[in-house]
Amino acid sequence: MKVLILGGDGYLGWPTAMDFAAAGHEVCVTDNYMRRQIAEATDSEALIATPGLSERARVFHALSGHSIEVRIGDLAQPEFMFEVVRETQPDCIVHYAEQPSAPYSMRGFREARETFQNNLDVTFNCIWAVKDIVPDCHIVKLGTMGEYGTPNIDIEEGWIEIDHKGRKDKFLFPRAAGSLYHTTKVLDTDLLWFYVRTYGLRVTDLMQGPVYGLSTEQADMDPSLCPHFHYDDIFGTVVNRFLVQAVAGVPLTVYGGGGQTRGYLNLRDTLQCVRLAAEQPAEKSELRIFNQLTETFSVNEIASRIKETGDRLGLGVEIKSIPNPRKELEEHYYNPTSSGLLELGLKPHYMTEDVLTGMFERIIANKDRIDKNRIMPRVRWKS
Amino acid sequence: MKVLILGGDGYLGWPTAMDFAAAGHEVCVTDNYMRRQIAEATDSEALIATPGLSERARVFHALSGHSIEVRIGDLAQPEFMFEVVRETQPDCIVHYAEQPSAPYSMRGFREARETFQNNLDVTFNCIWAVKDIVPDCHIVKLGTMGEYGTPNIDIEEGWIEIDHKGRKDKFLFPRAAGSLYHTTKVLDTDLLWFYVRTYGLRVTDLMQGPVYGLSTEQADMDPSLCPHFHYDDIFGTVVNRFLVQAVAGVPLTVYGGGGQTRGYLNLRDTLQCVRLAAEQPAEKSELRIFNQLTETFSVNEIASRIKETGDRLGLGVEIKSIPNPRKELEEHYYNPTSSGLLELGLKPHYMTEDVLTGMFERIIANKDRIDKNRIMPRVRWKS
Repeated sequence: MKVLILGGDGYLGWPTAMDFAAAGHEVCVTDNYMRRQIAEATDSEALIATPGLSERARVFHALSGHSIEVRIGDLAQPEFMFEVVRETQPDCIVHYAEQPSAPYSMRGFREARETFQNNLDVTFNCIWAVKDIVPDCHIVKLGTMGEYGTPNIDIEEGWIEIDHKGRKDKFLFPRAAGSLYHTTKVLDTDLLWFYVRTYGLRVTDLMQGPVYGLSTEQADMDPSLCPHFHYDDIFGTVVNRFLVQAVAGVPLTVYGGGGQTRGYLNLRDTLQCVRLAAEQPAEKSELRIFNQLTETFSVNEIASRIKETGDRLGLGVEIKSIPNPRKELEEHYYNPTSSGLLELGLKPHYMTEDVLTGMFERIIANKDRIDKNRIMPRVRWKS
Repeated sequence: MKVLILGGDGYLGWPTAMDFAAAGHEVCVTDNYMRRQIAEATDSEALIATPGLSERARVFHALSGHSIEVRIGDLAQPEFMFEVVRETQPDCIVHYAEQPSAPYSMRGFREARETFQNNLDVTFNCIWAVKDIVPDCHIVKLGTMGEYGTPNIDIEEGWIEIDHKGRKDKFLFPRAAGSLYHTTKVLDTDLLWFYVRTYGLRVTDLMQGPVYGLSTEQADMDPSLCPHFHYDDIFGTVVNRFLVQAVAGVPLTVYGGGGQTRGYLNLRDTLQCVRLAAEQPAEKSELRIFNQLTETFSVNEIASRIKETGDRLGLGVEIKSIPNPRKELEEHYYNPTSSGLLELGLKPHYMTEDVLTGMFERIIANKDRIDKNRIMPRVRWKS
């Protein structure tokens, strides 16, 4: 299968590219390094620096024998999107090419506009390139569990049948996200659904929870193949952040009450989910939606688990609630369904003591790289 | 009240401006004449040509004594949006500044992208200008009944309480629109809702059905004050189109089966609804949604009514079904609620024989201006 990965430089994009290549697929990655530029501008670089895509593709090829084609450019420009799709003729496009930081999207007008325009324009161009050039191509789009927010009813996998005043119909599950970044993904879903039902596109929208981890089969071959591991308040997801804080001897920064509950998954499971979806594509005219998570935890539960493992390693971990910079419910009902990917064949890697210990060891080896100035929240939802 | 009208050159924008000014409000209109340019480029000019905004404001002032300030510029450019809002300090913004043609939005990539970027960027800039400059300002946004599509359940006014597996919550009513234009309005609503609940903005989103008419108290003072009356397949709404076809001696072009049912309203009622909403604003942190329609009809019912009145005027009207250029259900359930605007004080003008006769007389007086090449659909949803 020919797979085109949009946003192939990212935390998930690069390991996904290696995973598909190692499985024998023909892989091309594109990126414009926007996330690297934002990380530099906001002093939020990854813990372990990695070279650009061409160098990583070279190292990966030398170690594995598998090739990854690299194309650098801005997919928000239709000319580049159309050129890449025309020249690569993909069977599957994995679309990660979005500005992925919720805090960055809430920083001010410039950052909000950059996020809004980049994310929507890339999705729009991707839809049109597929529709006009490779109409049978399957788009695997990374959405987010954050699209749903925290409703007081069970979260179904993308769709809900509503029984109202004695009549019934099936609709997209209602969405109410907690940041502009998450809202751009709501809009992406609306847009994809319109074009799917009008032109018969085939799309899988993966509603992913926060991902943690830095180890994958291919990434572990060489330090330069490591995914971008962020521990700052801008790009760092909560588990990754807490682990670094524990190693740095800084109290784990629980935002507010810590009852905020989300669905999490291991980076290795993201790779499984994306490949399972790609290898068992959606039908024509189908917007297939999966909730991509393996376990739910509150922030307090995550902090406790990390403290427990950290303490066992002699780190003496502290936990401290700080004022919540976000606008979100700190106590709420949360019950997402997530059977679809298990049915496709997902074998979850849960957040065990072993997994956390493995991550701790890797972070401890890079302890001198930690910049403590990146830990406290620098963006507030409402100033 | 200081009222800023975005898209003040439009079919609805200009009569709205005169209506607010005549009611004693301080009015500023902005426009970039995008719709005029598209009309020219697609050979879809209005039946009755009208001068630019400055000239119309001059005529209106001479006849009524009321002033309307005119600012020409592109609201999709944040600099212009921020400048206008900073300098006018509005109490209320009426946001009509969107590319309003469904067929144009479905014509090809260029037109789709133009629609998508203009509509979303103007809404985005408007939200930010209000949030940062006049946070108490009430945004009255023109949505469309088309956002809902044709669900098999009753259409509530914007919100629905969902009872699911023994738990309840209230959500935006599900949306599934039939064109990219209508989909941009779905995205507008999602975006407004995010910023309303995060920053406490006050917004009224008016889900309007197709509007018909060309007569208003102020517009009738002088031919140059007439709203842009389109009868072509690109900008013409169905009632206006059918009336012109009847006068031109062309069979009324019913798309497909003609069972497509929508909620309609008279242009005079649009003016009432928008002013009622503006004069009784939404609360802080409220996204108030009204369904703006006064009657529902199928396309076949509209065709029959127009034939009946036309025949009484001796026009010998024919009705002819043509292949449906759109992708839509031609037979469906349709039961929208619309009590909110009546409760605010709306006094409907229904589609009576008198109303249709008045429109016919005006069109007959301009019969020689009708270009029959603009009548058959020039855009197909799927080619």
